Amino acid sequence: MAKSSRLFSVLLRLLAAAATLCAAIVMATSHDSTTVFGLTFDAKFQYTPSLKFFVIANAIGCFYSLLVLFIPSGSSLWRFVIVFDVILALLLTAATAAAGALAELGKKGNSHAGWMPICNQVPGFCDHVMGSLICGLVGVVAYLLILLHTIHTVMSPLFP
Amino acid sequence: MAKSSRLFSVLLRLLAAAATLCAAIVMATSHDSTTVFGLTFDAKFQYTPSLKFFVIANAIGCFYSLLVLFIPSGSSLWRFVIVFDVILALLLTAATAAAGALAELGKKGNSHAGWMPICNQVPGFCDHVMGSLICGLVGVVAYLLILLHTIHTVMSPLFP
Repeated sequence: MAKSSRLFSVLLRLLAAAATLCAAIVMATSHDSTTVFGLTFDAKFQYTPSLKFFVIANAIGCFYSLLVLFIPSGSSLWRFVIVFDVILALLLTAATAAAGALAELGKKGNSHAGWMPICNQVPGFCDHVMGSLICGLVGVVAYLLILLHTIHTVMSPLFP
Repeated sequence: MAKSSRLFSVLLRLLAAAATLCAAIVMATSHDSTTVFGLTFDAKFQYTPSLKFFVIANAIGCFYSLLVLFIPSGSSLWRFVIVFDVILALLLTAATAAAGALAELGKKGNSHAGWMPICNQVPGFCDHVMGSLICGLVGVVAYLLILLHTIHTVMSPLFP
């Protein structure tokens, strides 16, 4: 039982590492440009603070998820891992939500604020952003499952 | 010890309820308008999906935080409360991050995407959004502390 629980936890962390790596790489390689009335319009993730935050948060998420795999079971470090799991889950959620808000704006615009949609001009960029958001969302779900799994494992004896 | 721990938990939930109520109300009452070249430019939270999400998430957060106060200590419902605490923390974080991303855009704009800042035109609206974001952030921190407090309380006996 403990062994299968440990295996499940390792699989969830591998999923989180893969998803956050995918999210960071796909966002970091997003680039497209278009020419409107002789003016070249360039789209890169570096131009938007929320997308930069997304790349940094997912890179941290990937690094941390892999690092935790090397902690021996039974180590007292696991106490801190549980705390960091909570913080990582919040960090990845914040990054995905902020990038998602900007992606929604890029797709639909906001006529009240005079912000036009840009996805019809730079579809390659928007496709990349959408792909990386899906990976980011998988990372968030993986961390939610890691937290729920920890709660289940630790608290089961307390609520028989 | 158990009594002071319970009191601390209640205080954190009251803080979370007050902060999320403040966040929802201040955002919901945000409204400003300006006239540029004879055109009236109206700013309301309803015009932006991320700000609507922020109001709904904080209203849910306030309702839930108050509801939990009525659960008797020792009830087996606390097992579910811990799970819902995690979900609420992620929901409030997502809402604050998405609204924060839009607020940053409203303040600074994004010249690469052709999105102009709007805060110089509707400062009253932006001040309200900023105020509600600060309340929202206090709510997120309160939920982070609730989670860390739960971890500390439940797991202390496991890692002596």
